[in-house]
Parts: sequence; structure tokens; C-alpha cells
Amino acid sequence: MINKLTAKIQKTKAPIVVGLDPMLNYIPKHIQEKAFQEFGETLEGAAEAIWQFNKEIVDKTYDLIPSVKPQIAMYEQFGIPGLQAFKKTVDYCREKDLVVIGDIKRGDIGSTSAAYATGHVGKVQVGKNRIAAFDEDFVTLNPYMGADSIYPFIDVCKEEKKGMFILVKTSNPSSGDFQDQLVDGRPLYELVGEKVAQWGEDFMGDSYSYVGAVVGATYPEMGKTLRKIMPKSYILVPGYGAQGGQGKDLVHFFNEDGLGAIVNSSRGIIAAYKQEKYANFGEENFADAARAAVEAMVADINGALEAAK
Amino acid sequence: MINKLTAKIQKTKAPIVVGLDPMLNYIPKHIQEKAFQEFGETLEGAAEAIWQFNKEIVDKTYDLIPSVKPQIAMYEQFGIPGLQAFKKTVDYCREKDLVVIGDIKRGDIGSTSAAYATGHVGKVQVGKNRIAAFDEDFVTLNPYMGADSIYPFIDVCKEEKKGMFILVKTSNPSSGDFQDQLVDGRPLYELVGEKVAQWGEDFMGDSYSYVGAVVGATYPEMGKTLRKIMPKSYILVPGYGAQGGQGKDLVHFFNEDGLGAIVNSSRGIIAAYKQEKYANFGEENFADAARAAVEAMVADINGALEAAK
Repeated sequence: MINKLTAKIQKTKAPIVVGLDPMLNYIPKHIQEKAFQEFGETLEGAAEAIWQFNKEIVDKTYDLIPSVKPQIAMYEQFGIPGLQAFKKTVDYCREKDLVVIGDIKRGDIGSTSAAYATGHVGKVQVGKNRIAAFDEDFVTLNPYMGADSIYPFIDVCKEEKKGMFILVKTSNPSSGDFQDQLVDGRPLYELVGEKVAQWGEDFMGDSYSYVGAVVGATYPEMGKTLRKIMPKSYILVPGYGAQGGQGKDLVHFFNEDGLGAIVNSSRGIIAAYKQEKYANFGEENFADAARAAVEAMVADINGALEAAK
Repeated sequence: MINKLTAKIQKTKAPIVVGLDPMLNYIPKHIQEKAFQEFGETLEGAAEAIWQFNKEIVDKTYDLIPSVKPQIAMYEQFGIPGLQAFKKTVDYCREKDLVVIGDIKRGDIGSTSAAYATGHVGKVQVGKNRIAAFDEDFVTLNPYMGADSIYPFIDVCKEEKKGMFILVKTSNPSSGDFQDQLVDGRPLYELVGEKVAQWGEDFMGDSYSYVGAVVGATYPEMGKTLRKIMPKSYILVPGYGAQGGQGKDLVHFFNEDGLGAIVNSSRGIIAAYKQEKYANFGEENFADAARAAVEAMVADINGALEAAK
């Protein structure tokens, strides 16, 4: 799957991922109204609105992009119907041949991590059957609990040829509270980065590892250091656009082969129609605005990479 | 809800929580067979088996205990039907007046943590309606991303009078990989413990805070230190029984008032019938074995607390 991700990035020339993190207030009124007419102002109604919104965004962007990243929290808040919309979104994106990164940030003691791994990237045994539950291609993981919270994911991913991105340095303002604490004079996130590199060494694709990292676009200097610590790990970079990151900040997240990083934007794309810049599309044409925002993002990043050569 | 938890612990004289973490291989054959007959060897069949298993355990133990802790991973691995069983379990336990700790170990950037908080301990706005999705009483949280990943839970919990337990020092063997790293000569988990105490100061119940901590039974010396760092925080203590902790290891997790800690056992109770000690109950009477294991656990812990006086 890391080879597929790399190949798709090369083919689309778009080292980006579209974050499918729909908040209800991003969803145009006409979609919400139609869903509420059918299902009422219920969890089912909200889930239907989310699904219809996602589908239209995917239909209008899938040919331009290698990958999507649904953030499961945005679905989980609508309970079971919300998670059904998550699952439908995962399935639909895979049908469109997109690489699906489940942004789940899980991590727990060994047997529990094994259950998460089984549910999200593996198959669960029920009697004689082995059944895939959520079936994403990659997941994001939280490393706070240490190596034995990660190994079960590595085991399952090896079997399924799937992969993971482990939180190293996150994009949010408070990420430094613990991640930046100095351990023997070096920030904790560097130690985590070293572990990611080490875990990944034994689980390589053709040129990159199945074990990647999350490093926020909002911390470009740290990204530069971490790029060197984890040369074979793909870096998933959140924080572009709405959170403040720009193309020029991202140059050092990439390797000299022009690969090794994939930049996420969520709001900046899926709610592009709300920005002044794309207002001319109108609410009805929100997915065309998303497509234009994808094109602008790709141009911004590729331009920055070109300028840095 | 922290006052309710404290009152229930005092009433039952049982500072314990039963971990409802059903693996299919814990579930007696007769329950699995019945569920598979009705729903096939499918996710729905597995979910039905889990639900029937949980229900019988709860029916046979609810009068002895203050609280249960369903581990959501064990349900999530069975996809949507599994999560429906999680929700049914949460609802049923709340009907039985048990305090329900959702062991979800979530944590993300601000807006995403807000979605998790809304879904698990709050209410989500859909049109004119505010709807509770999962509706647990407490949740467990992962602090790696820092303060702004926790605040949204504090905000929602203040509104709903609900609470949280934040991972400080976890029970698993690799927990030291990052948690034990020395920062200015002190382990990281102490820093996290200080933050927990600080976050909790502004969100107090009558005698304890709504912001608790998770500290593993497998690290009793660290528990002793953390007890002092977080005097007003309830400590949720996993790792008793199957993971190796015993009553005598737990004395220093409690305050002098005999309160301040709640000890979890999962396998040791729900799969007690598989232990030699409880084999005489037979597989059919697994829930009676669970009741006996609850009684033995309470006696062990109270005996140790009594002996330490």
C-alpha cells in the first residue's frame, strides 16, 4: 500500500491528501435540508448529509488526488449512524481507487491495540469467517503507550500490506506540552521519530517504509530535523491551510527525490466555498470550489518544491 | 458524576470497576452458538454474542459494584454491529445505575477533540435537536497532544457534569518507552500527573476532581509518587489480576480517606470461569463465576487496605 501511495503521488503529481472531516456547518443548506426531510433532524439525518457531501467532494476531486483522510471523530460524534457514514465513505473512496488513511489516532495495551488493528486494517475471525470491519488502507496512531501499543498494528499491516502514520510532532498549538520536553537535551518528539524510523526499518516497501509519521506543517524547522531522523518514513503533514501552514513551509518535509511527504488539508478544501477566494462558485457548487482549492494547493506545494531545487 | 462515583464506592465498599472487554474466546460456546444460529457467523452474530454475554455479567454483578468500563476497541473490531453492542451495553449499565467509564483513549487537535467529547460525553446539535450519541459518564483520554486536546473534554464535561481519566502511567510493559523518559531529572509521567492535577483544580466535585488519571497497578512505586502529585484526582488503576497486580500493590494508590482509587479488572472477572479457581462453576454459569471473582477481588483489596492501616 505504501508503494501504491507513492505511485499514485507520482502519477497525480499531487503530494496531498484531502481531509474528509465534515462538520455540519460546512455542509451546504440544500444538502442538509434534503437529508433532514428524509430522516428528520436526527443522527441519521446528519449522517446522510455528511455522506452526500463527501460523495460529491470525492466525485469532483478523485482524479486529481492520491488519497483521502477521513477523521473518524467527525463521524463518531453522530454515533452509530455517523460511523455508518464513515464506513460508506471509506468504501466509496476505495472503489474510486483512492488510498484511504483512517485518522483514528488509536493506541492501547497490546491485546487492545490488536483489536483496533483488526477492526481498522485487518480482518476479525468470527467462527469460520474472517471479516473486514472498517478496512482502511492506513491508520494514524498515538505512541504515548510505547512499542507494545504499536507492534500489533505492524503485525496486522504486514499481513494485509497496509500501513500507519504515528504521531511524532502534532500541528496543534499545545503539541509542545509533552512532545517538546527535553530528554537528554533533545525534544521527546525526536526520540519518538527515532523509534518510528527503527520500527519502519523492518517493514519496507520498495523505497519507503509502511511505518510513517505525523509531523505538523506548523512546525517547519522540526519537520526539517525529523525528515533526517526518519529518511525512509513518509510524513503525513497536517496543518496546511486553515491551521496556518503554506507551501514554502513544507519544502523540508520532502526528500530530494521529491517524495516522502503527503500534505493534508481538510477545511481548506472541503469548505473552500466559504472562503472569499472561492465565493464565486456559490454554495450549490461547493464541490467545484473544492476542486479549485485542490488545484491551488497542488500548485502552491509543487511551486515551492520547484523553487527550492 | 464524580460525586456519584464516590458515593457508590462508599455504598458498595467496592473500589473496583469491571472491565467489559469481551473477546469472542471468553464467551461460552452456548452463547456464541445461539447468536450464530440467529445471525450467522457475521459481525452481527459476534455483536449479539457479546451483548448477551455482557448482559448476563452485568445482571449478576451490578449490585456489588459501582462501575463498569467497556473497552471500545473490543467492540470496534466488529465494526458497526460491534459498536451497536457497545452502545447497548452503555445504555443497559446506566439503566442499572452503574457509572460507565468509556475506555476510549481518544485525544486530538482542539476541534477534533471537541467532536469526540460531543459524541461520547456530550450532545451533538442536529438542526434544532441536541442528541447524545454514546453517552458514557466518564471517558479515558490520551494526553500526548497536550492541553488543547484535553480542554474540549473539560468544557463538555463541565456542562454535562461528567468526567475523564487521563493516561499518566499505563500498565503495559512498554509504557516506559516514552512515559519514563527523564525531563529535568524527573520522568515524563510526573509532568503529565502535574498537568492532570492542575487541570482538575478548576473542576472539582465535593472532595475529588472530575479530572482523574490512569496509573497501572503494575507500577506500584510510581503509583505512590503520583498519588501525592495528584491528591484530588481519582486514579483509575488497570492491570489488576490478569496483568499481574494484586491488592497489596494497590494500597498506595488510595488516599488516607480510603478513597481516590478505583481498580479495574477485565479478564480476571468476565472470564473467571476459565480459571482453575472458578472452574467448578462450569461454562454455563460463567456469570456466577464472575460474581465470585468480584467478591474475591473486593476482599483482596479491602483486606490489603485494612492491613495497611
